[in-house]
Order: sequence, then C-alpha cells, then structure tokens
Amino acid sequence: MANIYDLAYDLEKGLRNSEEFNGLKEAYERVMNNPDSKEKFDLFRDTQLNLQQKQMQGEDISEAEVEEARKVVEEVQQNEDISKLMDQEQRLNTVIQDISKIITQPLEELYGDEE
Amino acid sequence: MANIYDLAYDLEKGLRNSEEFNGLKEAYERVMNNPDSKEKFDLFRDTQLNLQQKQMQGEDISEAEVEEARKVVEEVQQNEDISKLMDQEQRLNTVIQDISKIITQPLEELYGDEE
Repeated sequence: MANIYDLAYDLEKGLRNSEEFNGLKEAYERVMNNPDSKEKFDLFRDTQLNLQQKQMQGEDISEAEVEEARKVVEEVQQNEDISKLMDQEQRLNTVIQDISKIITQPLEELYGDEE
Repeated sequence: MANIYDLAYDLEKGLRNSEEFNGLKEAYERVMNNPDSKEKFDLFRDTQLNLQQKQMQGEDISEAEVEEARKVVEEVQQNEDISKLMDQEQRLNTVIQDISKIITQPLEELYGDEE
C-alpha cells in the first residue's frame, strides 16, 4: 500500500502544476509588481483583517469604519489586476474545498453512520 | 500531468486503507457496540457541543454546567473503549493536519513571499 504522505506529496505536486494554481500565481505576481495595485490590495487585506478581528472579539464597528471598508472594496473592484486575482483565489479555493471533501470522505462515512 | 481530482482520490483511498483510519474505525465500532460506552460517549459529545455553542454565542456558562462537564470527562476517561477511541481520533487528526499542511504548501510559499 502506498504511504499516505507520498500520496499527499503527489497531490501537492499536482496542485503546484495545475492551471488553477499557476493562474493564481500569475495574477498574484501581476498585482505585486504594480505599486498602485499592490498598495490597494494591501489596504484591502488590512481593512478586512481589522474588521474580522473586531467582529471575533465582539468589538463594535463604527459607521465610519463600515463606510471606509465599503470604499476600499469599491476601489479594489475597479482595479482589473486585483479583480482577476480575486477570481483566481476563488477558483483555487473551490478546488481546495473539493479536495478536502474527497479526502475526509472516509471520516464522514464513519461518523455519519451513527444516527 | 495527472488530474488533481484523481490524485485526491488516490490519497482518499490511501487514507481509507491506512492503519490510522482502520484503528479509528475499530475503536469507534467498539464504542458503538457497547451500550454503556455508547451512552457515555454520546453524553460527552452532547456536553462538549453544547458548551462550544454557548461559548461561540457569547452566552454565560454556569458553574453547575462546568462541574457537570468535568464529571462527564472524568467518566469518559475511565472508560477504556472511549479513551482508546480518543487516542485514535488524535492520531488520525495529526495525519490529516500533516496532509493539509503538505497540500497547502504551494499557497504558503506564494503568500508567504510577500513581506
């Protein structure tokens, strides 16, 4: 029987060579190599992270912060490089979720059987 | 290049045939086939789930509930079948975490490069 870790590394290699991953990489590098896009993207990330942290810690989010976040999202959506990057992130995300569903199937069957 | 989904199914098969998964399955079935162990295990699960939900919803957890949960954990720890099941769950969990770290390595490298 093949070793699980070998199989995991095979999958990792497959993912690394996939159209989905390379599309993401290209889109990411395009954003990182354009100072204007990079700045907008970093600001977007920071804003999202900040709001998420506040939400998780049960802190209040002011109207000004919501408005600020809305503006950042709007700017980001108008930037073609970043829009493309987000599409690619979404695509790879779907693949990763599918993979995760496939490999946890044996556990689902085991624990799902109980009821 | 091999299809990512084929590679994921290979890994799923490997996991399904692994010592770790079959050890878990056996331990789980032993608990499920012993009415006393099953009852304790179900109570333990329900108690944990209930506390987790309250915690996530920011609800207060009373001293009586904490005491009750402590008692349930104690009983479960004294049950050999359940202790074994928990060990096996822990073992498989480690494997799944390792696999997850391996296959998300390309993403780690891409996004970790930025700073």
